[in-house]
Amino acid sequence: MASSSTPSTTKQWVLANRPTAAPILSGDDATFKLQEASLPALKDGQILGKVLYFSNDTGLRNFIQSTVAEERFYVPMVPLGSPMRSGIIAEVVASASDKFKVGDNVLDFHLGAWSEYVVLEAANSQPLAPLPAGLSATHFLGALGASGLAAYSGLHFAAQTKPEHTVVISAAAGATGNMAIQIAAKLIGAKRVIGIAGSDEKCAWVKKLGAHECLNYKSPTFAADLKAATPDEVDVYFDNAGGEILDLMLTRMKKGGEIAVCGAVSTYNSGQPTVLRNWFEVVSMRINIRGFIMLDYMDKVPAILGELIGAIADGRIVLQDAETIVEARIEEQPEVWMRLFSGGNQGKLITKLII
Amino acid sequence: MASSSTPSTTKQWVLANRPTAAPILSGDDATFKLQEASLPALKDGQILGKVLYFSNDTGLRNFIQSTVAEERFYVPMVPLGSPMRSGIIAEVVASASDKFKVGDNVLDFHLGAWSEYVVLEAANSQPLAPLPAGLSATHFLGALGASGLAAYSGLHFAAQTKPEHTVVISAAAGATGNMAIQIAAKLIGAKRVIGIAGSDEKCAWVKKLGAHECLNYKSPTFAADLKAATPDEVDVYFDNAGGEILDLMLTRMKKGGEIAVCGAVSTYNSGQPTVLRNWFEVVSMRINIRGFIMLDYMDKVPAILGELIGAIADGRIVLQDAETIVEARIEEQPEVWMRLFSGGNQGKLITKLII
Repeated sequence: MASSSTPSTTKQWVLANRPTAAPILSGDDATFKLQEASLPALKDGQILGKVLYFSNDTGLRNFIQSTVAEERFYVPMVPLGSPMRSGIIAEVVASASDKFKVGDNVLDFHLGAWSEYVVLEAANSQPLAPLPAGLSATHFLGALGASGLAAYSGLHFAAQTKPEHTVVISAAAGATGNMAIQIAAKLIGAKRVIGIAGSDEKCAWVKKLGAHECLNYKSPTFAADLKAATPDEVDVYFDNAGGEILDLMLTRMKKGGEIAVCGAVSTYNSGQPTVLRNWFEVVSMRINIRGFIMLDYMDKVPAILGELIGAIADGRIVLQDAETIVEARIEEQPEVWMRLFSGGNQGKLITKLII
Repeated sequence: MASSSTPSTTKQWVLANRPTAAPILSGDDATFKLQEASLPALKDGQILGKVLYFSNDTGLRNFIQSTVAEERFYVPMVPLGSPMRSGIIAEVVASASDKFKVGDNVLDFHLGAWSEYVVLEAANSQPLAPLPAGLSATHFLGALGASGLAAYSGLHFAAQTKPEHTVVISAAAGATGNMAIQIAAKLIGAKRVIGIAGSDEKCAWVKKLGAHECLNYKSPTFAADLKAATPDEVDVYFDNAGGEILDLMLTRMKKGGEIAVCGAVSTYNSGQPTVLRNWFEVVSMRINIRGFIMLDYMDKVPAILGELIGAIADGRIVLQDAETIVEARIEEQPEVWMRLFSGGNQGKLITKLII
C-alpha cells in the first residue's frame, strides 16, 4: 500500500473549453486549465503512478474536439472538466495490486493523463519489456507504441503494400511517418518509397531512414517535384496529412491505387473543411480510400511487435534519431504538445516530466 | 454501298469552348457550335447511320472539361472542334460492311455523336437484340446500357452489397440510380434500400421501384430525415451525387462501411471543389471509398445483361417509367442534355431525334 511519502494531491491539466480551431493556451478561452486535484485512496487492483513521460500525439486533438460526433468517434472523447488524456510511462509509487510493486515502471494508454501523479488500473497497465540495443523504454510510446503500430497496420492491412509498389508517405518525419518509411523501405522492401515532410532537414533524415526520395511540401515547387518524383504514379499513399497534400496526391495515384488514411493533421487546427479539387480522380482512376485505426488490429500486436523488435535488433529499423525528448514541468505540457502542429519534432515527440 | 438518297453532309454539334462551370448554350462563349459537316465516303468496314436516339448522360460533362488531367481520364476527352460524343441508336442508311445492311438498327458508344448522320465502324457497332415484354430498344442506352451496368457493377463489385445490408443510393430517380434501387432491392434483396432524389414525385416513383424509403434532398429537414431513416447506419452508399450529399453520408456510414463512387453530378457544373466537413469520419469509422467505372467489368457484361433481362422478364425489374424520351431536332440537343443537371428527367433521358 501507499508509503508515507505518497502524495495526496496532484497538478493536472483538465479540458476547460473545446477549441474550434487551434487550441488556445491562455486567457479566458484557454483550452486547458491546470488544477490541483486530490488523489483518491487506491482501491483493490489500482496503482498510483508518478509520471515519467508523456506521449505527444496529434490524434489527441480529436479527443478534445472533432468534426465527428461523439458516438461515432473511435474512443471516448475527453469530457469537459476531465483530465486531458495521454499515453504515459509512470513509476509505481503505491500499489494495491499484485501485478506491480513500488518502483516498477508501467505503460498506460487508458487512464494516463496530463498529470504529475495518476491512479491507474493495474489490469490496463503494462509492464515495460526490455528492448534490444540499449534502447530506451520510451520507444514503447512511439516506434513500438500506437505510432509504429499504425504505420505497420496502414501499410500492411489497409493498403496491402507489396514489394513492387511505389509508396508515398506524408508527415514522413513524424512518429508514425518515420516508422512507415522504414517499414515500407526495409521490411516490405517497396520498389520506391517517397516521403513528404516540412523541411529540408527532415527530408535529409527521412532519406537516411531508407526513403528513395523526400519532398519538402513547403517548397514552392512541391507540386512539380511530386510529379517528377512519381513518373510511374503511386500504388500506395499513406496519408497522415489530409487537406491539400491529400488533394494533390489524388492526381498522382495509379489506376486502382490505395490510399490508407491514418490521419489528417493539416486540418485538425484549421477550423476549415477538407477542400478537394480533385475528387473526381477517385472515379476516373478507380482509387480506393480506406480509413483505418490500429485498434482494429490488437490481436496482431504481439506478432507485429516481434517483427519490429527483430528489425530493430538486426539494424533494419533505426530508432537513433526517432525521438524528440523535451524535458518540461507539468505547467509546460500543453506548449510541448502543440509543437506537433508547428513541425517542432523529428520522430516521436516525448515529454520527460520534471516533478 | 450508299444509295442515291445518301446525304453527303450532316448537321452536327462540335465542342467550341471548354466550360469552366455550367455549359453555356449561346453567345460567343457557347460550349457547343452547330455546324454543317461533310460526310466522307465510306471506307471498307464502315457504315453510315441516321441517328434515331441520343443517350443523354451526366458523365459527358467530364468528356468536355474535367478537373482530371486528360491523360488520367478514363476515356479520350472530346477535342476542341470535334463532334460532341454520345451513345446513339442509328439506322443504317449505307453500308460498306458485311456485318450490317441498310435498314438495320445499331447501337454505338464509340463514334456516336450529336449529329444527324454519323460514319461508324461496323466493328464497334452492335446489333440490337430483341428485348422481352415488348420493351423498346432504347433501353440498351439506359437500363441495359452503361447506366444499368454501372448500377450493377457498383453494387456488386465495388461495394460487395449483401442481403443483410442497408444501402443508400443518391440520384435515385436517375438512369443509374433507378437501376441501382431495383438491383439492390429486388436482385440482391438488401434488407433496407433508401433512395435520395430531388423531388417528392421522384421519391414516390423510387419507392414504387422497391426502395423502403426515399428522401428528398431539397427538403429543409433532409439531414434529420436521413438520420431518422438510417437508425442502424449504412453499410453501402452508392454515390452518384458527390458534394454535400457525400459529405452528409460520411456521417451516416457504419464502421467499415463501403462507399462506391459512381459520379459526382452535383459538382460537375459548379466550378467549385468538393468540400468535406466530415472527412475525418473516414478514419474514425474506417470507411472504405472505392471509385469504379463499369468499363472495368466488360468481361462480365454478357452475364450481367442476362441476369438483368431475366429480371425484366419475370417482373422484378420494371422499366415502364424508367425513360424520359424527348422528341427534339438536332438544334435542341444541348438543351435536352442540360435537363439532366436541373432534374428534368425520371430514369434515362433519351432524345428521339427528329430529322
